Amino acid sequence: MVAYDISASPDIDMTLPDETDPVFALHRQGKMAIGSTVELRDADDLSLAYTPGVARVCEAIAADPELAHEYTWVSNTVAVVTDGTAVLGLGDIGAPASMPVMEGKAVLFKQFGGVDAIPIALDTTDVDEIVDTVARLAPSFGGINLEDISAPRCFEVERRLIERLDIPVFHDDQHGTAVVTLAALINAARLTDRELDELKVVISGAGAAGVAIAKILRAAGIRKISVVDRTGVLVPEREDLTEIKRWLAEFCSPWASAGSIEDALVDADVFVGVSGGTVPEDAVAQMAPNAIVFAMANPHPEVHPDVARRHARVVATGRSDFPNQINNVLVFPGIFRGALDVRATEISESMKLAAASALADLVGDDLREDYVIPSPFDPRVAQVVARAVTDTARRDGLARRPY
Amino acid sequence: MVAYDISASPDIDMTLPDETDPVFALHRQGKMAIGSTVELRDADDLSLAYTPGVARVCEAIAADPELAHEYTWVSNTVAVVTDGTAVLGLGDIGAPASMPVMEGKAVLFKQFGGVDAIPIALDTTDVDEIVDTVARLAPSFGGINLEDISAPRCFEVERRLIERLDIPVFHDDQHGTAVVTLAALINAARLTDRELDELKVVISGAGAAGVAIAKILRAAGIRKISVVDRTGVLVPEREDLTEIKRWLAEFCSPWASAGSIEDALVDADVFVGVSGGTVPEDAVAQMAPNAIVFAMANPHPEVHPDVARRHARVVATGRSDFPNQINNVLVFPGIFRGALDVRATEISESMKLAAASALADLVGDDLREDYVIPSPFDPRVAQVVARAVTDTARRDGLARRPY
Repeated sequence: MVAYDISASPDIDMTLPDETDPVFALHRQGKMAIGSTVELRDADDLSLAYTPGVARVCEAIAADPELAHEYTWVSNTVAVVTDGTAVLGLGDIGAPASMPVMEGKAVLFKQFGGVDAIPIALDTTDVDEIVDTVARLAPSFGGINLEDISAPRCFEVERRLIERLDIPVFHDDQHGTAVVTLAALINAARLTDRELDELKVVISGAGAAGVAIAKILRAAGIRKISVVDRTGVLVPEREDLTEIKRWLAEFCSPWASAGSIEDALVDADVFVGVSGGTVPEDAVAQMAPNAIVFAMANPHPEVHPDVARRHARVVATGRSDFPNQINNVLVFPGIFRGALDVRATEISESMKLAAASALADLVGDDLREDYVIPSPFDPRVAQVVARAVTDTARRDGLARRPY
Repeated sequence: MVAYDISASPDIDMTLPDETDPVFALHRQGKMAIGSTVELRDADDLSLAYTPGVARVCEAIAADPELAHEYTWVSNTVAVVTDGTAVLGLGDIGAPASMPVMEGKAVLFKQFGGVDAIPIALDTTDVDEIVDTVARLAPSFGGINLEDISAPRCFEVERRLIERLDIPVFHDDQHGTAVVTLAALINAARLTDRELDELKVVISGAGAAGVAIAKILRAAGIRKISVVDRTGVLVPEREDLTEIKRWLAEFCSPWASAGSIEDALVDADVFVGVSGGTVPEDAVAQMAPNAIVFAMANPHPEVHPDVARRHARVVATGRSDFPNQINNVLVFPGIFRGALDVRATEISESMKLAAASALADLVGDDLREDYVIPSPFDPRVAQVVARAVTDTARRDGLARRPY
């Protein structure tokens, strides 16, 4: 396994391309390409795939626009849309610099879900402009995956696009992360023989992931949730809260009580870190027996997994080089695979819960402390997630293609 | 060769999909797909192509956005953008129904130019909204190919995007058609032993193609140009002219004189039809000896080529099932191949003229009445067009990658 040092290397100018680094060599000219699925050998082929033959397909779709999902690639496409404001742990690096991540995401969509994804980095960070732009692109795609848009703007962008469009819109930094987190937590609770609704959970981070994780854990039956930001636990009494943080504070009350993260972690069963901050070892040591620590900040977990393991029974991170990687790739390819397969009108909360449950179940008898979540390379992952989504869509009447 | 009857079939409802028609079978689920150019076999691969490795590439591009053209697929991509208002000969059929044509175009881009093209059908026909939307997408693409946007809106959309963006913007219905037409005309003049600047040219149609053809023919040295619309020859005295038609009338004066298309064709050397109208045989018979007839309306040429050949020495159409097809595919893949290869800032008039000249020269000693323009399947076509573009870009200082 390639070793990536968690600590930064102060001697290297990280902003210069380094062709001796295999990362730069691999990225030269990008990571993806368009392929034709039809042959164009001669004028006959051309007259079928292009003019004059194509005109008949156009006329059929003009009469019934739904046919675009039968006779164009739209049926299998997702736009991966960013404004470049919250890219990985790098923050607001702008549209051009976000493209390698969007391309990587597109490659993962194809490899794991068979979905044709197109990276779209927008030259605007204005919510109205993002919403208008994506809405105007919508006829070209079967779904919209929002990516690396900073909070709280991401919430409004997603909400308004869901309202405006009849194709699935999914902000992966929120819901992909939330679904995998819930799946891992289902298994960690199973392993430690506890019910979900008994667990006391502390979430560090009130951004896109923190909000979505709080919501999905509540939907899964967990009531004892505290969310912590830099200043401390979100409680309604605090006067420094933004709109979304105030909403979270009320969402978590009356359980959550004021205090620092150290205060919150005393006797907590679960720590979920999606903050990029740090948690001292002392605080982890104060958690309840059989503690569960998901320190998911990338590339620097809130607490080093080797340290966390001294005090916790189950430790997960966001990194591929430690056990139990909470990796969105376990979810978004299968979610969109399923949604596209049945032409779902949306990706509902029920679909997300079903996906988490299916993902957790896949671990089965292999469940142990360092294996609470499947490997992304388990070829069954996308299938079971897609199946959970399609079954739920059919059950809930959200499938336009119900066969 | 597949036989397509020029006349419509009144017995068939053309708007219903017909799976016995090979066109519909071929279009099922679309004509293109995304492919990965990197392997993702294990966690090591993932850590290079995605997190954490990708972060270094992002940081390098954030420090120097130009590097996006070295380390992402942007360097080889073109957005094929339409609003669905002027699709083939079908007119304003809307965004979803335009997708099969945009996909076909994307497939041709790849097959003939090695360019990764993305079909984008916009859910707006408002000029401001189209311009804003495309401008916001621009960081994701190396060039913009505008397609099937109706006149006169297409002129403003193109002009404003060229002003606003530093990547090539090219409305193919205008300039692709114009470049191929000029190439064919260069050879038709050669064959009939005339100089371009001697030719009297009548253009039927004052839309996207008519305007661009008039411009490029003038740039190539032809002065005696008349443009005709439904009402007759465009002359400044007419009071029914739109802004672009008034411009064209002034552009063609003092040569053009008032009258019908029949009047204009008397003793004309060249007819260029891009109108969708019809021209009676009598009018063709009145043209000068060695007449050149390019009846390019699709799928119904302004005059049937068999009829035209009774009176004209060289006859071309827009159709693949007659000789001398004036087909944009001869131009747009090579134009963008060349523009992307040198990171051209624009596609200039000089590049278009150079492309037409190179395309004409490719016919060489094979020149004859039914072969004034190469076949799209001649593998040298895109290469010579691209070479003409890159050479011109370097010469004129429009190449950002001048090696």
